[in-house]
Amino acid sequence: MILEDYLNSRRQLIDRFFEEYFRSPLIPVILKDSVTYSLLAGGKRIRPILCIASYEACGGETERIIPYASAIEFIHTYSLIHDDLPAMDDDDLRRGRPTNHKVFGDGMAILAGDGLLTEAFYLLSLNPSGIDPSLVLQAINEIALASGIKGMVAGQAADLIYESQESDPETLYFIHSHKTASLIKASIRAGGILSGACYDRSLLDSLSIYGEKIGLAFQIIDDILDVEGETEIIGKPKGSDEKKKKMTYPRHYGLGRSKEIAEELVTEAVKALSIFDEKADPLRGIARFLIERRN
Amino acid sequence: MILEDYLNSRRQLIDRFFEEYFRSPLIPVILKDSVTYSLLAGGKRIRPILCIASYEACGGETERIIPYASAIEFIHTYSLIHDDLPAMDDDDLRRGRPTNHKVFGDGMAILAGDGLLTEAFYLLSLNPSGIDPSLVLQAINEIALASGIKGMVAGQAADLIYESQESDPETLYFIHSHKTASLIKASIRAGGILSGACYDRSLLDSLSIYGEKIGLAFQIIDDILDVEGETEIIGKPKGSDEKKKKMTYPRHYGLGRSKEIAEELVTEAVKALSIFDEKADPLRGIARFLIERRN
Repeated sequence: MILEDYLNSRRQLIDRFFEEYFRSPLIPVILKDSVTYSLLAGGKRIRPILCIASYEACGGETERIIPYASAIEFIHTYSLIHDDLPAMDDDDLRRGRPTNHKVFGDGMAILAGDGLLTEAFYLLSLNPSGIDPSLVLQAINEIALASGIKGMVAGQAADLIYESQESDPETLYFIHSHKTASLIKASIRAGGILSGACYDRSLLDSLSIYGEKIGLAFQIIDDILDVEGETEIIGKPKGSDEKKKKMTYPRHYGLGRSKEIAEELVTEAVKALSIFDEKADPLRGIARFLIERRN
Repeated sequence: MILEDYLNSRRQLIDRFFEEYFRSPLIPVILKDSVTYSLLAGGKRIRPILCIASYEACGGETERIIPYASAIEFIHTYSLIHDDLPAMDDDDLRRGRPTNHKVFGDGMAILAGDGLLTEAFYLLSLNPSGIDPSLVLQAINEIALASGIKGMVAGQAADLIYESQESDPETLYFIHSHKTASLIKASIRAGGILSGACYDRSLLDSLSIYGEKIGLAFQIIDDILDVEGETEIIGKPKGSDEKKKKMTYPRHYGLGRSKEIAEELVTEAVKALSIFDEKADPLRGIARFLIERRN
């Protein structure tokens, strides 16, 4: 398996799904522009690809999982739109383009985010591939838990509250594991659950460990790229964490140690997959890819 | 049945559920204050009560539906928090108290709203009463459809965009049916679906007509109260629609005709319930109550 081909083919499936979804005449024109502006801005689609790869690792057929995986990207995109707002991180640039509120205004950006979040649960509960309803319900439950006031939203709140404060490892871990790792882990677990593999607890437990580790590594690399990356490649101004005095791994542990921690996490993540056969190779490859990425 | 007793007893069940829910140590302290500030501000609980009443009309036992009905109030409360933001309606007063962002800041208010919306889907998918998962999935689907970019969020967007514009009956109807009637109707349908009554199409169709009519009447009365009500009773400054040049029924049709329209809608709503027995008396009573209310 060549990982690049894998990532490209899965990303194309997701992008094609989005394009068709928003071509539907059932989506009102109002808000369509602001929703698609952010959703079709060429994201890496990491979370949905992880959901797909996990579903495949458990023996599922790719096509069946695309709508559910795509719904997770709705949630990720809503979180970016709200996070960029002046009342939050106040960012003007995302993926090399003006942020949503810069183009459509703060009110529309708030509504586009609200709409995307709600649409995710609409799409999941629509159950387009006719998966066992009790599995879909369980997947929705995990995704909502990971995104809400016990997950991502709690992480964002802490990120906001602890700006400019003395960094401590416990708070730093809380922020990173909630604002980023939580939804990444849930994307992977959702893939496993929807495949029916949740009935084998040890498989789902392995996916959970894998998800936790790469989720945290992913955010640490984000922190590192904010210090070392190039604005043109990362698509947003370099050094913005430092400017906002965000609590980050490089700020607390230094760049060298942060890279080591990310490396260790990836090694542990891959190790957790040892009970899986070669169908989990994409998951193994993605773990390495995530720490070698440049954007 | 004395309607006041009915409303009080059901409201108490919902309020008690909320108090216990947010007493849980699993809810992080962060955000808890801002979420409960708005949720426990003494709302009328119209939407959850309608969900309960509809479930009961279909023969369901009250206790079983409380968590699902309460989840709908999470969605309503999130919409109020976001709607009051400076970037949206910019309101300072709600239910006689400063609005959420006035107390906790815009960033926390956005997150509290996001958290409540997500928590609604978490709670629904938790399926606390062990209802048939396919029914729960269908109820989630209807609620998400009614709240999202084809429902409430579309209504809010239109409400924002068409401020200060010449009012026309079509746009006015779009705004009111989407921003308010949509979730009210879904609350009622969800009650019917979760009871299992959706398998009898004619019952669910009747509930839908009832919901559409009282949902629209509810928003027309809101418009009228904004003109005629007393600030102290309605809990927000009177005349704010006119100040913002909102598209409202009184502005378009005049006060007298608006009241007639609301009356007609309620009459039609009650008529739609004719195939139900006396278990639907609370629904009938609520329809009348909604147009006689003073806040």
